[in-house]
This record gives sequence, C-alpha cells and structure tokens, in this order.
Amino acid sequence: MTFNAPVKDMIFNIAHLASWADVSTLPTYEAVELDDAEAALTEFARFVAEEIAPLNAPGDQVGSRYENGRVFLPDGFAEAYSKFVDMGWQSLPHPEEFGGQGLPRSVGAAATEMLNAANMSFALCPLLTEGAIEALLTAASDAQKATYLEHLVSGKWTGTMNLTEPQAGSDLALLRSKAERRADGTYAISGTKIYITYGEHDMSENTVHLVLARTPDAPAGVKGISLFLVPKYMVNSDGSLGERNAVRCVSIEHKLGIKASPTAVLSFEEATGFLIGEENAGLRYMFEMMNSARYAVGLQGIAVSERAYQQALSYARERIQSAPVDGSSREAVAIVNHPDVRRMLMRMRSITEGGRAMAAFAAGWQDLAKHAATAAERASAAAISEFLTPLVKGYCTEMSVDVTSLGVQVHGGMGFIEETGAAQHYRDARILPIYEGTTAIQANDLVGRKTLRDGGETALRLAEMIAQTEAELAAGSAAAQTVAARLGRAREAFISVVQHLVNTGKTEPSAAFGAGVPYLMLAGNLVAGWQLARALLAAETALQNGEDPEFMAAKISTARFYADHVLNDTSVQQDRILEGADSLLTAIL
Amino acid sequence: MTFNAPVKDMIFNIAHLASWADVSTLPTYEAVELDDAEAALTEFARFVAEEIAPLNAPGDQVGSRYENGRVFLPDGFAEAYSKFVDMGWQSLPHPEEFGGQGLPRSVGAAATEMLNAANMSFALCPLLTEGAIEALLTAASDAQKATYLEHLVSGKWTGTMNLTEPQAGSDLALLRSKAERRADGTYAISGTKIYITYGEHDMSENTVHLVLARTPDAPAGVKGISLFLVPKYMVNSDGSLGERNAVRCVSIEHKLGIKASPTAVLSFEEATGFLIGEENAGLRYMFEMMNSARYAVGLQGIAVSERAYQQALSYARERIQSAPVDGSSREAVAIVNHPDVRRMLMRMRSITEGGRAMAAFAAGWQDLAKHAATAAERASAAAISEFLTPLVKGYCTEMSVDVTSLGVQVHGGMGFIEETGAAQHYRDARILPIYEGTTAIQANDLVGRKTLRDGGETALRLAEMIAQTEAELAAGSAAAQTVAARLGRAREAFISVVQHLVNTGKTEPSAAFGAGVPYLMLAGNLVAGWQLARALLAAETALQNGEDPEFMAAKISTARFYADHVLNDTSVQQDRILEGADSLLTAIL
Repeated sequence: MTFNAPVKDMIFNIAHLASWADVSTLPTYEAVELDDAEAALTEFARFVAEEIAPLNAPGDQVGSRYENGRVFLPDGFAEAYSKFVDMGWQSLPHPEEFGGQGLPRSVGAAATEMLNAANMSFALCPLLTEGAIEALLTAASDAQKATYLEHLVSGKWTGTMNLTEPQAGSDLALLRSKAERRADGTYAISGTKIYITYGEHDMSENTVHLVLARTPDAPAGVKGISLFLVPKYMVNSDGSLGERNAVRCVSIEHKLGIKASPTAVLSFEEATGFLIGEENAGLRYMFEMMNSARYAVGLQGIAVSERAYQQALSYARERIQSAPVDGSSREAVAIVNHPDVRRMLMRMRSITEGGRAMAAFAAGWQDLAKHAATAAERASAAAISEFLTPLVKGYCTEMSVDVTSLGVQVHGGMGFIEETGAAQHYRDARILPIYEGTTAIQANDLVGRKTLRDGGETALRLAEMIAQTEAELAAGSAAAQTVAARLGRAREAFISVVQHLVNTGKTEPSAAFGAGVPYLMLAGNLVAGWQLARALLAAETALQNGEDPEFMAAKISTARFYADHVLNDTSVQQDRILEGADSLLTAIL
Repeated sequence: MTFNAPVKDMIFNIAHLASWADVSTLPTYEAVELDDAEAALTEFARFVAEEIAPLNAPGDQVGSRYENGRVFLPDGFAEAYSKFVDMGWQSLPHPEEFGGQGLPRSVGAAATEMLNAANMSFALCPLLTEGAIEALLTAASDAQKATYLEHLVSGKWTGTMNLTEPQAGSDLALLRSKAERRADGTYAISGTKIYITYGEHDMSENTVHLVLARTPDAPAGVKGISLFLVPKYMVNSDGSLGERNAVRCVSIEHKLGIKASPTAVLSFEEATGFLIGEENAGLRYMFEMMNSARYAVGLQGIAVSERAYQQALSYARERIQSAPVDGSSREAVAIVNHPDVRRMLMRMRSITEGGRAMAAFAAGWQDLAKHAATAAERASAAAISEFLTPLVKGYCTEMSVDVTSLGVQVHGGMGFIEETGAAQHYRDARILPIYEGTTAIQANDLVGRKTLRDGGETALRLAEMIAQTEAELAAGSAAAQTVAARLGRAREAFISVVQHLVNTGKTEPSAAFGAGVPYLMLAGNLVAGWQLARALLAAETALQNGEDPEFMAAKISTARFYADHVLNDTSVQQDRILEGADSLLTAIL
C-alpha cells in the first residue's frame, strides 16, 4: 500500500492555523520562509514514501528480534535509518547551534506526522530521540550538551526515556530505581525499567538513556526523583566511544502492534549515570520531555489515521459491490459511491484533518511560548500551549482507535485478513491512548493543572477566541453560518463544563476527575472543530481568489461534515459531566 | 484468565425480559420450568469454564494449521468438542423430534453467549451448525431431514454456510458458483467460496456444507440463486459414510483474530449437491439461516464484551497504582477505586448487560413468532422479532469493539502485551461488525425491509411499548424517574427519526440509507436502554421482596449508569440523521 503524505494540507495549516505571521517574524525564525518549509516537507514526503513506508508491513510481519541481550530490527530498518540520519531529517526543528535546521515546530510536527504515517514503528526511534533532546536542552550542563546534543540532533545517536517500572506505571511516586553517588561525581544506577521504546537496537552507534531514579537520601514520592543520563557506551573525552555501560536488555515484549519497534526491559546494574540538572528535580525535567513526547504521540494518532484513511479510500474506489441505493444504476458500482461508505470515509477524513488542524494550531503556540519577545508574551502563549497538549495527545489518539477501526470496516471481510494491511493500523493505534500517559492521565492533567489551577482562565480565553471565529463565520457563506451555529453550541457546552468543574472541583474532586475524560474529549473535539472552521474561512477566501479550487472545496466540505457529524458529540459529553456524576460515583462494581 | 458465566443475570433476563410467562405456556414449551433452564445453564457454565475457556488463549497463540488440504485445530479443541457433543450441549434449543432438548430460545441464547465468551473461536463451529439446522428445518425434504438433522442437532456432524465468493461479498447478486443438474436428480456444484468458517477441520466425522449456486438457466441476480446441501462425505442409504465428495480446502486465512477458527477457501469441483427446497428460492432459505446466524453474532458481541469486562475488572481490583484523587489516602490504591477506571468499567458493564437484556427480549419474540397459537399472533411477534435482529447484530457487535477497546485501556501498558489476554478480545471482536452482513448491511435491512416497508408501523409499536415502561418508571423511585425521563427523550428521538425516514425514504433514498447506521445505533441503544429500564423495575420489586439484594442493587445501578452515560448518545444520532444529510451527500472525497 503506497502512502502519499498530505503536504498540501500541512502547508495550508501552517500558513493559516499555526500563527505563521507571528512565528515567522520571531528573531529565531526570521530566516524561514513558507516556501522553504514546503520544499523541505515535499522532499521529506518523497523520502518517507520511497524509503520508509515500504518497510511498514514487512516490519509488522517479522517484528524485532531479541537474541542474547541484543535486538535486531527487521530487514531494511537499519539501512533506512542510516539514510534518514545522513539526509539530516532528525535535525529539522532543532537549534542551529547544535547542528539543527531551526525550522518552526509546526513544520517539525508535519514531518513527524508523515514519518509516523509511513511507519509508526520506525518513527518511534526518532520520536524518543526528540524527547531526549528536549530534556537536555532544558536541563543539561553546557558540558553535557556539548558531549551529547550534536549526535542526538543529527540522529547519529538515539535517545530513550526510562520511567516505568513494573510497580510504577502511571504513578511515578512508586519508582524504586536507585542512584548512588560515587566519589568521581557520577552515579551508580540500579533497577529494572520496562516498556523502554528502542531501549536496545542495532540502528545507531550509541544510545542515550534518560533514567529516573532515587538517591539514597531522597524524599519519598515524586519529590525525590532525579534524572540521569546513562549512555549505552561511555563517551571518552575526545568524543570517541569507550566501554559498554552496565545496562542490559533482558527481553523485549510481544505486543498487539508496533511490532517492529522493540519495547525493552532494561536492567541497570550499577550502570554509570550522570545527573542532569539538580537532584530531586527530575520530574520537572521529565515533564519537559514528556510534554514534547505527548504532543508527538498525538501526532502519531493523526498519522495512523491518515494512513488508514488513504488505504480505505483506495480500496473503496476499487472494490465493486452492489448497485446504488438510489436506483440510478442496476449494475454494481465501486463502494465509494454507497452512502454509508462515504459516511465512514468522511468521518475518518474529517477527524484526521481536524486533529491535524488542532496540532498545527498548538505548534504555533509552542513556538510563541518558547521564543516570543517578552516574558509575559511567552507565559501567555505557554498557558495556551500547555492547555492544548493533553487535547492533542488524548483526543487525537482516542479518535485514532475509532478511525483505524472504521478503516477495517470499510474493507469488509478483507479488513480482517492481515495481508490487507488495514488491521495493522488498528493494532498499532491501540497503544496511542496508553503510552506517554493514558487518556485518564491526560485528563487529570487537563482538569487539575490546566483548568482548576488557574480557575478556568485559560479555558475561557480559548472560548473567547472561538467566539471571535464564530462572529467571522456568521458574516460568511451559508456553510460558514451552519458551522458557526454548531461551533457556538459546542463552545457553550465547553464553558458550562469549565464553570461546573471550577465551581465543584475542590469540593467534589472525585466527580471532577471522573468527568476528566469526557471533558478532554469535549475540549479536543471543540478545538479540532474550531480549527476546521478557521480552515473553512481561509478556504473560502482562497476560493474567491481562485486558489486551488479542488482542495479548497474539499476543505470546506470536510469542515461542514465535521460540524454536523462529529462536533455535536460535545453535547453528550456535556450531559455526562453535568448530569452523570451521581450514577458514576454511586456505581456498584 | 478464568471465566465465570453470568448465569444469574441470564436467568434474571429470561424471567423478567423474555416474555417468559407467554413463552412457557406455549404448547411447545409446556414441560419447561425456569428451574430446569437454570439447572441446564449452571451445568453448562461449569462445563465451559472448565473445558472450553482454558483453550481460548492457547488457541489464539497457535491458531489453526493448514496442511495439504487438511486443517488441524489447536491442541485440545477436538477433545473438547467431543465432550461438548457427548454431553448434548448442541441440542439444547432444538426440537425433540430430532433429538433436541426443546428449550426456549432465550435459554439457548444464554448458552450460546457463554460458549462464545469462553472461546469465540471454538463456539463458531456450533454456531454455524445452528445456522444449518435452521435452514434444513425451514426448507429441507423429510428425507433430507431424516438423513442429516439428527447428526447436526447432536453436533456429531457440523454445518457451514457457503455464500461469499471473491467478487461477491455483501452483494449476493454477483454469485457465480454453478449447479448443473444430473440425470440422477443430484447437482454438480462448481465454484470457489471464501470466508467459510470451519469449512474444513478435524473435529467431526462429517461436515454439511450449505452452498448458494446458480443453475444454468437461472434468472440473473438474487432471484436465480438456489441452495444446495453438499456433504463432505457422502452418506450411504444406511446412514454410514461413503466416499469423499469433490470439495477441497485450498487454504485458510491469516486473520486479525479468532485465529483458532479456520476460515477456509473451498473449491467445489463438480461436487455432488442436493437441492434444498425449490430452485431459485435459495436466498429466502438462506435468510432464515442468516437471521439465526445474525442474532447469534450479536450474542458473540455480548459474549466477548462480558469476557473483556471480567478480565478488566479483575485486573483493576489487583493493580495498585496512585493515591485516590479525593485525598482520602496518601497510599496508592487498587485502580478500581479511581473514578475514570470506574467510568470505563461501568461503561463496559452497562453496555454488556444492556445488550444481553435486548437479546433476551428478542429471544422471547422469536419463540412467539414460531410457536404462538394463531397465525396473526405469530405474524405480529415475527414483525417485532425481525425488527430486533439487525439491532442485536449491529448494535451489540459495534459496541463490542468499544467495550473490548476499553478492556485494553483499563489494563494500561499491560493491555498492549499479548500475554495479558485483553488484546485478544479486541482482535477477536473486530470481525463481529463485519461477518454475517456488515453493520451497513444490517442498517439497510432495518431501513428498507423493517421500517420503510411497513411505513414505520413496527417501529412505532415498539415506541408505544416503551412509553408504557416510561409510565411505570414515572410512578416509581427517584432512580426510576430519572431513567424514565432519559428513556422518554431517546424514544422521542427514535420516533422523529422513524417519521423522517418514512416521509423521505422513497424520495431521498441516498439520505435514508446514509442515515442507516446512525438509525440502527440509535434504535439499538434505545432498546437496550429500555430493557435495562424494565430490568430496573423488576429489580426494585425484587429488592422490596428481599430477593438477592446485592444483585438487584447492582442491576439498578447499572441501569441508571446506562441511562446517564450511554442512552444519551441517541440525541446525537438523531441530530446526525435529521441535520446531517446535506453535508454527507455533498461530501467531496
């Protein structure tokens, strides 16, 4: 199954939804033109289509292989990774100081999405490296940055995140891995870490493990966690690789999906680690890394949805079955003509494009949060950006399970046959609402840190921005007005829920957190629908200017479909939250 | 993972929801007491727990194996099937005339559900045999019945349904298999059939293939299809087995789930077939078989949901992680105490119990449709029963995908590891909205044959019955009144959609059929919620009488949760149908 990255849609989003006017005038990005971004993404799209996508199905069939402490990726992965590094793709969104290309996050996000759509198992390796880069940029010493960052930014070395232990999944307070300080200032790291993506593999010379552990005198709970850098191979002072560190891959997991991506159990046996930042501040740094990774997992949800959609659409155009229900022909036609198949495909497409639009919007705020001129501007942008992270992660991944399930359904019986490939997306997608924090963990973050903590201020700022879009829509075409009405109802549902949570969250925490996932799904749906509404406005303007009529008409159609068929789910979520607490909290299990 | 069949819930449903008072006084069932049913189901529950459920995970791991035209089931399957036959379980709901035990369908349905919950791959063999029995009871000659039925009813021989061909899936008009009449009155059957469940296996002495094919002079399309019986081994006049017939298994499929169940490609090479009933009437007989099979597939959806729920609940009670959100403890607790885990488990449970309640209700109408005293009573019951079949099939299977997905989610990272077992249910469930007619095919049936054809009469009869339940609820407890209000809103949504379809279905068929799946999901949700509301009333009465307070309180809690958190989805489906046709039909793909 071929894959064509939706570069046009990505560039449209970057231009119209990702605060491009503000971002591209930041000093950091003043050299960047939209044409450069388009050229880079177009070239990368060719690369992933030719080199990475063809490895997806074969990689799923054979999976990674564990042998005596070593892990072998499926045939072709190491060679493809080598090309990926040689062509500099890892470095796209990173600072030029460390060899990066310094492109804005919205461009980096588009690249991440297309790599994941081509091959999620492959893309997980660079994705984890991104997280490590993020953490080191935040908290590493200059010497540490000098030693590790360049090779991570180039992709020559890869990175991992070591959080989970058998007894400590969502709850990092339960971590037991130990870090004992040695006389030379290094630490001896001991413990077992599980679910370590690309924890061991044969694609790179070295791996930089970032590991959460406790020093002997650390306070209990999450306030006693420190972050350590544990290289697979020690790095000599001249930058050459030294001896193997005492970290060993014990096994890899047998999983439902992403089978080519090795999920390792790592045993640290007094391995040499270097403290990153300060002792006991590990969780803070890890959050930096996790926020980057959480957003990227949201992109994975969009990516696998796009891949599933392309495959389903292609099948629906080829498969001939049954005469049209309207009697317009007595001959069987391609199933893409049947209303329910169109319904499924439009649902897949509109959810995918809605997620992509929300992610592009969020990327713009991430850049402003990092690089805007004043501290106040950065803080203001950060509040929005941080509010959006759990929505991108939670909503786009939950919906990817639905979208890939529809992808199977469009294929009928063929969808259940593994060789067809639709089932792989359904299996692969299922990890996304789980890793980097389950949807419930994202929802706890959204309720607690992102809504209750500021009394709903950021949420209501977003609602105010949505109301402005509604006003623009209301002055527009008939389609725009329909969308305005639906967006208005969804916004009102959101406001009522935010106010309810702010009013009751402190006194009825179980009700508030029990409403967390419905609230997250409501908010994610609203923001995705809002961004598609903004896209509709931009497309109508473009259409009036005669730009790319086919693309713009489809964009308008997709935005309308989303408003009529997806956005209205917000009313039920509101109802569950406002009226459903009692039957949830008194439920007898 | 152990499995305990929910016998108590099944008996409760049979007693309170499945028209037991009417069914048990039919002459056919006059010898049957509820206690007999309970004894049979309790014994069968023990059998499936001990003999069948333990084969589920190992069967998934190794799958069925094809070798040179033969198919070998995983270890233990053939022995277990033998015990199943020896103990007479296949015969439970069948006429005593052919060696059956003559129990009502509601009891048979409960047995089918528990066998499927124990092991869906195993249960598919008896399930297909049921379909064959149904078709022969409907249309076979007395001589054919005498030759085949007893061995099918006992399970000594198994049955298959041969409909699909590579070019003919949902659309049977495209069938090409040929049947040429020979001088001796038999037919030479030629063609290739795909997706034949248990088309070849080593568990029984003989297999009775029921095959759709065309005679040379048959009319085109579905009016030219005849039904043939093609035994794997010919049957001699003394009942002994003769030579192998010319039907050959070419391969079996490599599937996403139900891996132990062999899905065969069968090649008929001038195989000897016997006409069932009349030439060109095959589709009618096949519908009889399919209706039985469709209902049974709905039961599979409930079954796999129950299994996934039990597994998730058990894990949630064991897994310790994170302190409670309400601050009641600073220690980590079992995750079953966290509000979002409770939300997921209650969603799984209430949807599963709602589906079971609907299926029990439908089973009662099936018996009345078959055995009521007068033709008018039978026709009246048949209209209800036939309306419910696509709801049981479509709603319970679509929801099983959601429920098993939640089952994975409750497990967190462990859910993605195959050894945990949660992933198997998620994979197994995915076939259910596809085989025996996709959800869209069920929806076409519901819209066309079950709603438009009688001008909405049956649908509105059901709505009238629901209104009566609302009146009973409104006179009851506070919980009952809350449910009454929600049920009333859902019923009104249903009525408005039925009227809309009846008014516009003829003139705007694409809109009507494009609304089919949302209509099916609305109707299924409504009927499941209605039956849970009836269950709530029965449970409140029982509670007043001091009967089994723990079970009754949980039933009331489950019914309330369903009304607050699931039933309200009907409002969005209504909105999609009434307001969403334009954006669907004008969608640009």
